[in-house]
Amino acid sequence: MISIILIEPQFPGNIGAVARSMKNFNFEQLILVNPKCKINEEARNRAKHANDILDNAVVEDNFPKMDYLIGTSCKVARDYNIPRNSITPKELKKILPKKGGIGLVFGRESDGLTNDELDKCDFLVTIPTTNKYASMNLSHAVNILLYELSDLKNDITPISEIEKKQLMKMINKSMDKMNFTTEEKKHTQNLVWKKIIGKSFMSKREAYALMGFFKKLF
Amino acid sequence: MISIILIEPQFPGNIGAVARSMKNFNFEQLILVNPKCKINEEARNRAKHANDILDNAVVEDNFPKMDYLIGTSCKVARDYNIPRNSITPKELKKILPKKGGIGLVFGRESDGLTNDELDKCDFLVTIPTTNKYASMNLSHAVNILLYELSDLKNDITPISEIEKKQLMKMINKSMDKMNFTTEEKKHTQNLVWKKIIGKSFMSKREAYALMGFFKKLF
Repeated sequence: MISIILIEPQFPGNIGAVARSMKNFNFEQLILVNPKCKINEEARNRAKHANDILDNAVVEDNFPKMDYLIGTSCKVARDYNIPRNSITPKELKKILPKKGGIGLVFGRESDGLTNDELDKCDFLVTIPTTNKYASMNLSHAVNILLYELSDLKNDITPISEIEKKQLMKMINKSMDKMNFTTEEKKHTQNLVWKKIIGKSFMSKREAYALMGFFKKLF
Repeated sequence: MISIILIEPQFPGNIGAVARSMKNFNFEQLILVNPKCKINEEARNRAKHANDILDNAVVEDNFPKMDYLIGTSCKVARDYNIPRNSITPKELKKILPKKGGIGLVFGRESDGLTNDELDKCDFLVTIPTTNKYASMNLSHAVNILLYELSDLKNDITPISEIEKKQLMKMINKSMDKMNFTTEEKKHTQNLVWKKIIGKSFMSKREAYALMGFFKKLF
């Protein structure tokens, strides 16, 4: 299970926004370590339909212990600063174990995690931002990690290999009724259609609708 | 160029948070269509060091025209609702052209984009969220799209093929000084080390530090 751990959060609005993001991406466990503010009306308003996450939030005095503690850091790391060498959220997604207690640790809005706190983490993740303005809003940083780590999918059924073939067969059949001066031009058409179908990340429903079009051509 | 287009945004705090996220990910052009609120002190506070984006924001009365208008929609789409069939941010990243004017269109905080507005978009993107609570905060939705579409990288130099080989050579050399009852056990060690180096997404600096360790073994 992945817990979201906020170290000494300072603004109730951010705690509420973190809760909402957690609910959007199906995460449940929020741990607040020495919060510097209360879960007040502003937090509740920002949490919207995620007030249950605020209700169940655990408040702790000490840095929690878990199988894995993954710290987050703003993009200040340079090669020679080994304590702040980090991986990206996309790399984290590739290696994150599905079992065990995992804590994602986020530092203060003002100045992140201390070196001592970083030291308590197994390793660090940094969201790639511009050097011109690397510091992200706390809830935005949580939001990106949760987006990247969640296994949620949309409910749209994508086109399958079968429909792709069926669609191409109908397109080719319609071309058989057309005049092409060379076989090559026909081949180019075939290629363009194939690529357009691919690039459009078509849904199954859209594919069947297009088949209806091509069916009318012959 | 990619512009961020907010249709009738209602809360100044969200406009400010969008500006900050844009600055973090190196996007510049903010377009507000019929905003229902002013860029006030709250917006300025939330934007932090991105006030220049608010200063340069363009306010328009009508839905803008661009080479590509990509609408965003909360996860309400089902297969049979063709106008709301959508692709994911990761799919969008794969196909997004590098040239031309591209507008990412975000609807109202309260109820998103109307069907008429969706109709003006070329296609839709939906962030995969849980069905239990699909509605994201406006600035969080913008934040995820910009994170996914930005080509920013962190400044850490990753281990290269050369260092990986060098490190494995040193590990193998240290094993030559150890007693293994079978060659198979040695082979297993080799395999484990190789995988651990891979999974740790090691930085070049970390790799050289480890080489220092193995150098001391022989």
